[in-house]
Amino acid sequence: MPLSNIRIVLVETSHPGNIGAAARAMKNMGLAHLVLVRPALFPHADATARASGADDLLGAAKVCDSLEEALSGCGFVVGTTARARSLPWPQVDPRACAQRLMAESAAHPVAVLFGRERTGLSNRELEHCHLAVHIPTDTDYSSLNLAAAVQVIAYELRMALAEPPTAPEAAPDPEDQPADAEAMGLFYRHLEQVLVEVEFLDPEEPKRLMRRLKRLFGRARPEVRELNILRGILTAVQRRVRR
Amino acid sequence: MPLSNIRIVLVETSHPGNIGAAARAMKNMGLAHLVLVRPALFPHADATARASGADDLLGAAKVCDSLEEALSGCGFVVGTTARARSLPWPQVDPRACAQRLMAESAAHPVAVLFGRERTGLSNRELEHCHLAVHIPTDTDYSSLNLAAAVQVIAYELRMALAEPPTAPEAAPDPEDQPADAEAMGLFYRHLEQVLVEVEFLDPEEPKRLMRRLKRLFGRARPEVRELNILRGILTAVQRRVRR
Repeated sequence: MPLSNIRIVLVETSHPGNIGAAARAMKNMGLAHLVLVRPALFPHADATARASGADDLLGAAKVCDSLEEALSGCGFVVGTTARARSLPWPQVDPRACAQRLMAESAAHPVAVLFGRERTGLSNRELEHCHLAVHIPTDTDYSSLNLAAAVQVIAYELRMALAEPPTAPEAAPDPEDQPADAEAMGLFYRHLEQVLVEVEFLDPEEPKRLMRRLKRLFGRARPEVRELNILRGILTAVQRRVRR
Repeated sequence: MPLSNIRIVLVETSHPGNIGAAARAMKNMGLAHLVLVRPALFPHADATARASGADDLLGAAKVCDSLEEALSGCGFVVGTTARARSLPWPQVDPRACAQRLMAESAAHPVAVLFGRERTGLSNRELEHCHLAVHIPTDTDYSSLNLAAAVQVIAYELRMALAEPPTAPEAAPDPEDQPADAEAMGLFYRHLEQVLVEVEFLDPEEPKRLMRRLKRLFGRARPEVRELNILRGILTAVQRRVRR
């Protein structure tokens, strides 16, 4: 089933009703995997009520303490964003996003992140994403309800189902597969460490530089083998520096 | 304004919360004209709460006793339908529907009808429609929430607007342009040098590794600013190593 590799991740949702409505929107469109990162209130009667017949999705929902845990095993991650970012991320509309997700999900689990009702995703959270998706809205009133945003993305995924998938041929060698979110996280930690050791990283503004580098490497989408080379380079630098 | 000729008509809505959420979905997408045919409870606190910042649409909503009154002046009417009808109506998906609505709305007011939460539109009501629109759903769970259905149709109308790109007019910053081949060549030479200095590069097979790295960075297409950062990192490593 082409949609079964797609997870919907809701980050720090305040209102349990929105979780329920999101589950309903998902199930209507054929999505099943709901992941909740630190929900304010869950389980909750409001979630169950708004889920209507989709309470099985709530029952099966995975509740996580960290975004890293929620993204475990994912080869491709999309973040929803309503605002212009100081450091713009590669950004598409829901239609292009759905096509990309369908193609990627043929090869590995993928995730779509939805942020908090008021403030969305933080820049740090967006750094986990290969792509940002922006739902077009009226310029005068752009605060989409969380479940409505899930509905739009889920709808586009359903529509994309009908179209012949343009999936890349799954390469047989796992080393040729894109590194997953966990491996990328470890790489970024290692990179940051080395940048501190060679005194390149400005301790005043470590995040901004790391965000730029994450955006750059996120675009490249290193394969497992390539990531191993990059990690090897970092280790070689550390060995020489520490001599 | 191309969307100003489009009316959203909700027929005998039971839950005022759905009316509010529909208003919010409409306003987000730039629709303003809400018409209510015999709503069970309206105005109502639940409607206002769910409308969030779209309560102006509720205030301006027209409440009608009959569908005929709601459709007064409309030159084209679409009805949403979730089920197969005994007498099948010409039926399209939301995308085709939005395109048709945009075309028709250039000539006259148009309306989209949404039926009751449980039972939808009656056959009699559907007879007022030139076209039926069906939102694709999973076959096992097809009961879309009313406001979610309004959201999907409103979203497709927004997409059909095909706005001119809202890209910033400012001349592109040359630092944001992809680095040219010359700059990339200098970067690769610098990278190779550093890899030798940290004793990572296998002198037996320098080309193979460099080819892999070029492929990786080639995919990322670094911007001038990003390439400067990468060069800066290489220089920092050399400074530390040579100390």
